[in-house]
Amino acid sequence: MSLDDASQKPHDRLSAYLAGDMDQVNNLIRVRMASEHAPRIPEVTAHLVEAGGKRLRPMLTLAAARLCGYDGPFHVHLAATVEFIHTATLLHDDVVDESAQRRGRPTANLLWDNKSSVLVGDYLFSRSFQLMVETGSLRVLDILANASATIAEGEVLQLTAAQDLATSEAVYLQVVRGKTAALFSAATEVGGVIAGAPEAQVKALHTYGDTLGIAFQIVDDLLDYGASTAVIGKNVGDDFRERKLTLPVIRAVAKADAAERAFWVRTIEKGDQREGDLAEAMRLLDRHGTLASTRADALAWAEKAKAALTVLPAHDLRNMLADLADYVVARLK
Amino acid sequence: MSLDDASQKPHDRLSAYLAGDMDQVNNLIRVRMASEHAPRIPEVTAHLVEAGGKRLRPMLTLAAARLCGYDGPFHVHLAATVEFIHTATLLHDDVVDESAQRRGRPTANLLWDNKSSVLVGDYLFSRSFQLMVETGSLRVLDILANASATIAEGEVLQLTAAQDLATSEAVYLQVVRGKTAALFSAATEVGGVIAGAPEAQVKALHTYGDTLGIAFQIVDDLLDYGASTAVIGKNVGDDFRERKLTLPVIRAVAKADAAERAFWVRTIEKGDQREGDLAEAMRLLDRHGTLASTRADALAWAEKAKAALTVLPAHDLRNMLADLADYVVARLK
Repeated sequence: MSLDDASQKPHDRLSAYLAGDMDQVNNLIRVRMASEHAPRIPEVTAHLVEAGGKRLRPMLTLAAARLCGYDGPFHVHLAATVEFIHTATLLHDDVVDESAQRRGRPTANLLWDNKSSVLVGDYLFSRSFQLMVETGSLRVLDILANASATIAEGEVLQLTAAQDLATSEAVYLQVVRGKTAALFSAATEVGGVIAGAPEAQVKALHTYGDTLGIAFQIVDDLLDYGASTAVIGKNVGDDFRERKLTLPVIRAVAKADAAERAFWVRTIEKGDQREGDLAEAMRLLDRHGTLASTRADALAWAEKAKAALTVLPAHDLRNMLADLADYVVARLK
Repeated sequence: MSLDDASQKPHDRLSAYLAGDMDQVNNLIRVRMASEHAPRIPEVTAHLVEAGGKRLRPMLTLAAARLCGYDGPFHVHLAATVEFIHTATLLHDDVVDESAQRRGRPTANLLWDNKSSVLVGDYLFSRSFQLMVETGSLRVLDILANASATIAEGEVLQLTAAQDLATSEAVYLQVVRGKTAALFSAATEVGGVIAGAPEAQVKALHTYGDTLGIAFQIVDDLLDYGASTAVIGKNVGDDFRERKLTLPVIRAVAKADAAERAFWVRTIEKGDQREGDLAEAMRLLDRHGTLASTRADALAWAEKAKAALTVLPAHDLRNMLADLADYVVARLK
């Protein structure tokens, strides 16, 4: 896979392959994010929905459904559902994180207010719920209800685990599932379900989405400590400054001697951060090789994602999904 | 109906009649608000769920189902669903309104933080969604999805209409449906649907919940201007200070002369409020008789609620629901 030519990125190939479906998804999103009564709603959602997100999650749903031979109309509803849930969580996340920027633009909570972000998020979540009901599939509703609960639970868990040095790798994984993997796996699984795929394929699609999502989030957390080949709009050290316990830090804390532990207690638990602390944190991660071991984990999750695909029918889309798993971890040095 | 004896209140009679069902609802609520992973969740929800709310909405669902002869298990799920949706909206409302008190206790956003209120609200909404899916009724899901969208839309509408003197009675009604009536009508309607009641009865239950909810909210808005027989823990003038356009004010604005209009522009649109302004507002409402005309509307909505019940089978619960409609407006002078 060449990374030099942007048109060759697996995401772009998926985009080109699914362009017809994606046009329908974008139309449906535009229609359903409107509100007859409250003009503030489309203002806020347009700001976010049309800000040029990658539409990765709806693409996963479309790809899964098509790969399993679906030719009905409801993969479009489900793809829009997944994007609405994602957008709703972004709106709420920006309130929770008190963010000022998202995708290089001011956040909705900054342009309007926290109130609008909370309520428009609720509105989009309700609209996503209506879209799923239209598919008439209780199984799809069950999958997406469970994913929604995992997402919300993971976010609360992150809130309470954020400054707790006792956070385990298991808790980290639960947070990662909430932040990313639960919606990825629901996105791919419902594609298979709506297509009426055999159980083994539905299970494989779930595993692919889950492991791809975990790899994706671990890579994101690594990039926050500068493990990137290029600048990608993320500021190195944000997680450290926000005292988030991500995998490289959890592993460094586990191996810390007394002096190092005191450093983590001061900077993460107590939030007393000084000039030079980020550099010291990076030195400790390096000393214990936790960036390297975390990178190895990300690669292993991406391999699991690719392995899951072998159960699925041979198909151009299957190859693109495999390449996507490689690409997600190729962002690392 | 005697209002002197507290044990005779229709709400208390419903409570006594449905005590067995309500025990099951409370158990289910306790089980489902727990979280295996995030202990913050039951802390926050217990604070709110166990704060002694009246459980009016779940009671409406139970009453509707029993009245239509239901003897399966799922009215309990639906009653818990409705209470979870209600609790989720309260958590988000407190963030939006920056409230410090609810039901005489500090709000969750004050005790913990806005983040916890937003995310635990999302969690409860997801849990409610799981509960509905368990009933296996797509129609129930459709009703509750639509109610959720109306609730969120009404809240956003209230946000943008709040300080806009051009707010019409139609917009007010839409806000009222979002704040109160949409969940009331969904609560009663799903009770009939799960019982497999004939269409005419399901429609009547919807109308009863809708009109009862509208009466309830109009009364609430009137009480805010002191139209009460007794102190009920609400501060007179809160809506005026928060520049909310409720029905008595909308009607007074419609009848305002130039000087009166300038008063409303200054106090509501511009938010420039001074000593004595609340008294002046009350004088204008009185001058144009808008408290009286609004009270007449509330009574008419309660009559509509009672009229809807005539389609339903003769039953003790039907009588209690009729008394409840009377009771809702009996709070007025």
